[in-house]
Amino acid sequence: MAVGTGEQVKLLGAWASPYVARVKLALHLKGVSYEYMEEDLTNKSERLLRSNPVNKKVPVLIHGGKPICESQVIVQYIDEAFASVGPTLLPADPHERAVARFWATYVDDKVLLPWGMLLRAKTDEERAEWTRQTLAAVDVLEEGVRECSKRKVFFGGDDVGYLDVLLGGMVPWVYATKKISGHNFLDASKAPLLAAWMERFAELDGTKAVFQDVDSLVEYVGTVLYGTTVSN
Amino acid sequence: MAVGTGEQVKLLGAWASPYVARVKLALHLKGVSYEYMEEDLTNKSERLLRSNPVNKKVPVLIHGGKPICESQVIVQYIDEAFASVGPTLLPADPHERAVARFWATYVDDKVLLPWGMLLRAKTDEERAEWTRQTLAAVDVLEEGVRECSKRKVFFGGDDVGYLDVLLGGMVPWVYATKKISGHNFLDASKAPLLAAWMERFAELDGTKAVFQDVDSLVEYVGTVLYGTTVSN
Repeated sequence: MAVGTGEQVKLLGAWASPYVARVKLALHLKGVSYEYMEEDLTNKSERLLRSNPVNKKVPVLIHGGKPICESQVIVQYIDEAFASVGPTLLPADPHERAVARFWATYVDDKVLLPWGMLLRAKTDEERAEWTRQTLAAVDVLEEGVRECSKRKVFFGGDDVGYLDVLLGGMVPWVYATKKISGHNFLDASKAPLLAAWMERFAELDGTKAVFQDVDSLVEYVGTVLYGTTVSN
Repeated sequence: MAVGTGEQVKLLGAWASPYVARVKLALHLKGVSYEYMEEDLTNKSERLLRSNPVNKKVPVLIHGGKPICESQVIVQYIDEAFASVGPTLLPADPHERAVARFWATYVDDKVLLPWGMLLRAKTDEERAEWTRQTLAAVDVLEEGVRECSKRKVFFGGDDVGYLDVLLGGMVPWVYATKKISGHNFLDASKAPLLAAWMERFAELDGTKAVFQDVDSLVEYVGTVLYGTTVSN
């Protein structure tokens, strides 16, 4: 249930962005009520440019009039600013926090970067190379999940945490990517722990309200990223 | 003064690395005693490969037998694991913490990345492009310092913080880069606040013990990065 926070919370976003989805997931899972404002990224608002003058990107969270930018920074902010509300996303133990932050960086730099490039690739050679890099990174992530699961640092089942939220923003994109490229990056035969996590995560209260429609994402890739509609 | 921590602290590093220097700065400024172990990056030790199997890179901090990797993650870990020792690096206020983390990401992605590419560049065209990108990013950072100084989020003068440590690891490299390329990226005429910060930071207890010899860094660029000695 959404709770009041004393000060108004606004989120500037773009509906297809997995980075915006992370922030929505964190807010929904914590139970923080907020006002969502969709940005047209082809014609950015004064509000966005003023709130994030450095990167001019979504997501931007505005809390009590103060902007916070960059999805990882925002999710940590939500955890700290609303510490008394809902579940705690970062673990309490300093070493476990460090492990969570390490894998957060890995997910962004090694998994999502080539994955995003794949969706923007223009040639078969490019597509093959970015697919290869993404699959290799998912292999390493699966091993990381195996190690971390033992210590319940993340993907812990009962407790939702920082990494669940960061990777969770990609769940609808897993299905969209499969429709577009034929590759299921979190396939149960290759990444059984991640595949099982994805199923569990998608069943949580709060995730369904955030997840985008997969066919709309497929169409988005065709019309916005490629500039032409692809079949789906 | 270095203090005992209950459990042994070891740092796997490479002397020229600005990322390792960050960790040393955090340990020295907090006053945490540690054992330093130099790694030969052309022949990585079993200890390094076992401690950081994902990235196989330094720095790695080992505390009580548990490894922590990635310099930003390590500096936050040091702040949290040794919370009762020395100065607090991250601000207490959630919004100020978010601002510090935002600029930390900016420094790594937008300032240090092109700067590092400049030092590895093979052609004049490459050097010109990476210099242009670094200078543009420093301009934005200078503006950020101007904004943040008002709120004492970082570069606060009296209080050393997270961003001081992260950017502080680059101070000897500012001078080395000037000798190599002729560009002083933190020049007082272009970035007066950063230049003044650099002078203040270099005077702190703990920084001199960490900073590398500039001529040795220049020689390192010639012999290791270029594979030939450049004049200095």
